[in-house]
Amino acid sequence: MRSAVVVGTGLIGTSVALALNARGVTVYLRDTDPAAARIAESLGAGTTTAPTAAVDLAVMAVPPALIGRVLADVQTAGLAHHYTDVASVKVGPREDAVALDCDTAHYIAGHPMAGGERNGPLAARADMFEGRAWILTPTSDTDRETLNMALELVAMCGATPVVMGATEHDRAVGLVSHTPHIVAALVAMRFEQAEERAVSLAGPGIKDLSRIAGGDPELWVDILGANAVVVADILEDIGVNLEDVVTGLRAMAATDEAKRDEGRRGIGTLLRRGKAGRERIAGKHGSGPGSYRTLGVLIGDQPGQLARLFTDASRSGVNIEDVHLEHATDQLAGLVQLSVAQTSVPVLEEALRAQGWHTQ
Amino acid sequence: MRSAVVVGTGLIGTSVALALNARGVTVYLRDTDPAAARIAESLGAGTTTAPTAAVDLAVMAVPPALIGRVLADVQTAGLAHHYTDVASVKVGPREDAVALDCDTAHYIAGHPMAGGERNGPLAARADMFEGRAWILTPTSDTDRETLNMALELVAMCGATPVVMGATEHDRAVGLVSHTPHIVAALVAMRFEQAEERAVSLAGPGIKDLSRIAGGDPELWVDILGANAVVVADILEDIGVNLEDVVTGLRAMAATDEAKRDEGRRGIGTLLRRGKAGRERIAGKHGSGPGSYRTLGVLIGDQPGQLARLFTDASRSGVNIEDVHLEHATDQLAGLVQLSVAQTSVPVLEEALRAQGWHTQ
Repeated sequence: MRSAVVVGTGLIGTSVALALNARGVTVYLRDTDPAAARIAESLGAGTTTAPTAAVDLAVMAVPPALIGRVLADVQTAGLAHHYTDVASVKVGPREDAVALDCDTAHYIAGHPMAGGERNGPLAARADMFEGRAWILTPTSDTDRETLNMALELVAMCGATPVVMGATEHDRAVGLVSHTPHIVAALVAMRFEQAEERAVSLAGPGIKDLSRIAGGDPELWVDILGANAVVVADILEDIGVNLEDVVTGLRAMAATDEAKRDEGRRGIGTLLRRGKAGRERIAGKHGSGPGSYRTLGVLIGDQPGQLARLFTDASRSGVNIEDVHLEHATDQLAGLVQLSVAQTSVPVLEEALRAQGWHTQ
Repeated sequence: MRSAVVVGTGLIGTSVALALNARGVTVYLRDTDPAAARIAESLGAGTTTAPTAAVDLAVMAVPPALIGRVLADVQTAGLAHHYTDVASVKVGPREDAVALDCDTAHYIAGHPMAGGERNGPLAARADMFEGRAWILTPTSDTDRETLNMALELVAMCGATPVVMGATEHDRAVGLVSHTPHIVAALVAMRFEQAEERAVSLAGPGIKDLSRIAGGDPELWVDILGANAVVVADILEDIGVNLEDVVTGLRAMAATDEAKRDEGRRGIGTLLRRGKAGRERIAGKHGSGPGSYRTLGVLIGDQPGQLARLFTDASRSGVNIEDVHLEHATDQLAGLVQLSVAQTSVPVLEEALRAQGWHTQ
């Protein structure tokens, strides 16, 4: 790949442009908002001048509802030899492209599993996709060169390509991303009018659960609208379980002991199923290279504790995959949970204990 | 306070015992499981021998459903001058105590806002309550000496006392703790049977949202059962909003444009309300000493990056309240979100930039 056009210089588009530019690709930037394109240019993502000939790849980084229309336009203009997109849903845009009679052989739909709560080119970074999954949804009519061009794009961004069907993709992201977003909002909205004293009791649990509800509402309306039926179906299933939970909880408050026991059993089953699902999400039961375990380390409330811990941990050579702090609101005393590869736990534990850390 | 009995040497009871013991209080340990009491003793939490005279304070750290019965028993035996508990709900235990004709003047119900996903005495630590809120629910007949004894307990544990009514407490913890637990389980359980490929797409959002679903199901059945009606009421409200969301999503998939717009408006309103609630939970709009802001710092994927970052941050003298990593599953390249007091942001930002860090 020698040249590319990025259509839409928001967070994802600009990050793609930065990554390609860093690999020596000539990147042309386009946005309906010229200011956004100029910001991306000023960040070193490419040029806002127009290409003089067809580029190798056009990457459409526009909302899902616009993909079909934009694809038809840029294909008519002969902008590129190959086309892809980075939209977070895949079925609807493909249907639009087919309806608009696009050249689907030279268009492969993609979706990098990355993003953030901040939007716009200023939040973009070249390493946004490093180590992330990047889903590609080739069809039987996809040109092999187009597939290879998309694979090159994914490789240049440091991501891992994952091939899926469009329907399978939309169901999966509905489950891991869109539905959680709605659920986080449903819980978080209770706090809009809650008493200050109740809000002040919010601890790490509700803070982590509600974090994604902080995303941009306008952006998320677009994302959810493009996968509306899938998300509605999943939410309806959750609604059925929710009704069972309410029934179970009310049974637990009954005077009749048999009824209370029935309620307990129902709630117990729900919680066990939730725990089993959580363990899969956390990768605790995996056996592949991605499976990890958590090591707890106690730290005091002196300012330098985290620094000392990470210095000691990095000397062990073990790669820390995730960090979670369980601690007070105003102080840092508490438990640091370090997630590391299953096989690295003994190494890290020994290294930290040798430095006087208390692990658990 | 010179002497105390801790009844129930689980995670919370043993942590209380460790804190009191560290302050020179003679602590007597009791548990229906003698092995649990001996483990707590071996950790330095106190002695498993019986007191020879009434102690100053008895702390009941048993499940909510047992508080009334245990209080009646220990008061009949004259175990202590004053009594408190650490149960996570307050209305039911108080009703039980009244029904069993307990001496309610010398019993003040309490609830430290701390805990963890691990249970049992081995996970206990003396600093578990440091900086946390510890709710006390005195009533009009509470003896002043009993209130003072409980305040001394809270101070010895390093926590901050918060006085609330029992009903207000149960509603608040239903909102910040019990309901989120159920909701996390409802989402996580979808992953029990999900395809491996869908599970492999799980990113930081769903991981954070589902974390609390990893808690012990048996323990949580007890907690939820003791606050069942409050949680059922909140979940029913959520269920109503959930139905509206499903209606809104289906409208967004309609062919009729007016209907689609109506759906968009409904979903947009939900997401904006969720974001407003989230901002209160995260303390972003607070003005008190507890309000904080997040500073993003870009890090590379070399092993020593986190250590270097925390060393540089600690040299700035700024207290880091929370840390969140947004990064790849297998590598640590990405964005570290540091939460610090609003007033400390410029100090930290300047210190980190001077060391060559990219902040945003």
